[in-house]
Amino acid sequence: MGEWFREEVTYQNQASLGFKIDKLLCREKSPYQEIMIFENSFFGRVMVIDEVTMLTTRDEFVYHEMIVHPAMAVHPGIQRVLVIGAGDGGTIRELTRYDNIRTIDWVEIDGTVVELSERFLPSLTTGNHDPRVRLMVRDGVAYIKEYSGEPYDLIIIDSTDPVGPGEGLFGTPFYQSCFDILSNEGIIINQAENPHYSPEWVTGIAGKLKKIFPVFSFYQAFIPTYPSGHWLFGFASKKRDPRVPEECPAFADILKYYNREVHTAAFALPNFVRDLLG
Amino acid sequence: MGEWFREEVTYQNQASLGFKIDKLLCREKSPYQEIMIFENSFFGRVMVIDEVTMLTTRDEFVYHEMIVHPAMAVHPGIQRVLVIGAGDGGTIRELTRYDNIRTIDWVEIDGTVVELSERFLPSLTTGNHDPRVRLMVRDGVAYIKEYSGEPYDLIIIDSTDPVGPGEGLFGTPFYQSCFDILSNEGIIINQAENPHYSPEWVTGIAGKLKKIFPVFSFYQAFIPTYPSGHWLFGFASKKRDPRVPEECPAFADILKYYNREVHTAAFALPNFVRDLLG
Repeated sequence: MGEWFREEVTYQNQASLGFKIDKLLCREKSPYQEIMIFENSFFGRVMVIDEVTMLTTRDEFVYHEMIVHPAMAVHPGIQRVLVIGAGDGGTIRELTRYDNIRTIDWVEIDGTVVELSERFLPSLTTGNHDPRVRLMVRDGVAYIKEYSGEPYDLIIIDSTDPVGPGEGLFGTPFYQSCFDILSNEGIIINQAENPHYSPEWVTGIAGKLKKIFPVFSFYQAFIPTYPSGHWLFGFASKKRDPRVPEECPAFADILKYYNREVHTAAFALPNFVRDLLG
Repeated sequence: MGEWFREEVTYQNQASLGFKIDKLLCREKSPYQEIMIFENSFFGRVMVIDEVTMLTTRDEFVYHEMIVHPAMAVHPGIQRVLVIGAGDGGTIRELTRYDNIRTIDWVEIDGTVVELSERFLPSLTTGNHDPRVRLMVRDGVAYIKEYSGEPYDLIIIDSTDPVGPGEGLFGTPFYQSCFDILSNEGIIINQAENPHYSPEWVTGIAGKLKKIFPVFSFYQAFIPTYPSGHWLFGFASKKRDPRVPEECPAFADILKYYNREVHTAAFALPNFVRDLLG
């Protein structure tokens, strides 16, 4: 059999998604969490934080394309971006494809995740040292609360689950701070969990963001290695309509998931997901 | 830990999706396959055939709504339906919601699946004894080859994977026979596997159906308990365009997944899935 990593995908430990560990590459405790990266002959490299699968190099393209490109297509004029979390670098890589972005401020609480990703997941970290990227290893909640610079056009909250170090990134005070430092045309995107196994997290995210932002919607993507495979992102803005992409990225032909039809389709929610929106 | 059922979700046994078995309800060998049904406190009841998860009562609504309602919305005049497989009854249940359907011929090779489903999965079998339903326990390939009655308006191939008893239901001769007994406005729907872990099955299905039918497309749904959660259905017809639903079902308010927007969105394929279409 060999050794396996198995993630509990429902709260009650009634189902699990497991990956064979062909070769353990690292298992390291940072001040915040335990990070493990291993090889699997089908999925490539797999990163796990605190017993939760963060990514595999086989299917990470879905998550990282879909957390970045919908917002950029809705508001192609985005110049100033703030990224909270995203320690693996995948979100930064997708953002650096856009010539019109001038600044990517990147606030990740755990420098160990960034270091291990640069070492073991080089296909994700190709944007890390782009001159527009400024990495700050610190707490995102405090950063946003204290920020007094120019407003951001896009804030991406690419966090772990609402437990442990990621918890504050799902709270009303944090969302209000995001609103306050966002430009008038600005957009906030966050990873928003899954509607099958974590409906209470989903309703919590929607309930809080809808109170603060005039426009809020979920959109969804097929992510095979996350619980249920049905993953939601939150889209909040002061006025931009999320469903209508103004343009497709200039580099659209290199993408493996996102296209114009997928953009609109991602916002078409099944009835049971609509119900969670309240 | 208790006992678990774990399905290998990739060929090379590099990942598995497991369910805790709270209570085993039956485990029976038919002449064709081994059928197991157990209870799980999160997913309800789970049916497994030859070590592959067929359904859970928690999320089967996605599969069964999506294998039936898109075709019915595209061609509301459907009166004569043929179902191949579908032993658990879920597809029959969804079809019997339509008053305009006059005949549902149901050909399932394994009567044991039907019997065990009626006994242990009563929420799926509510349509089984509708007067319009005629169950024939026999081989679907032979049935279609020998059929000489009135053409069908809709043929649904609700099969297991292309191995074991389901294999013939993925072959060119079978697809050609389906074409031959389909009315001019007719539609064929089949379960078409997943593009992440079984791309060669997906390309095989597309390649064969595209040679025979003037119109062919895949559409997709989020099915948490199937490998990768990204499930495809094939839509083949002589002329009907799949993307444009003529009407929503009269009972749309009781559905948990399907709606008009989901219909159109289901046909919006990510780039890597489009590539599999050839």
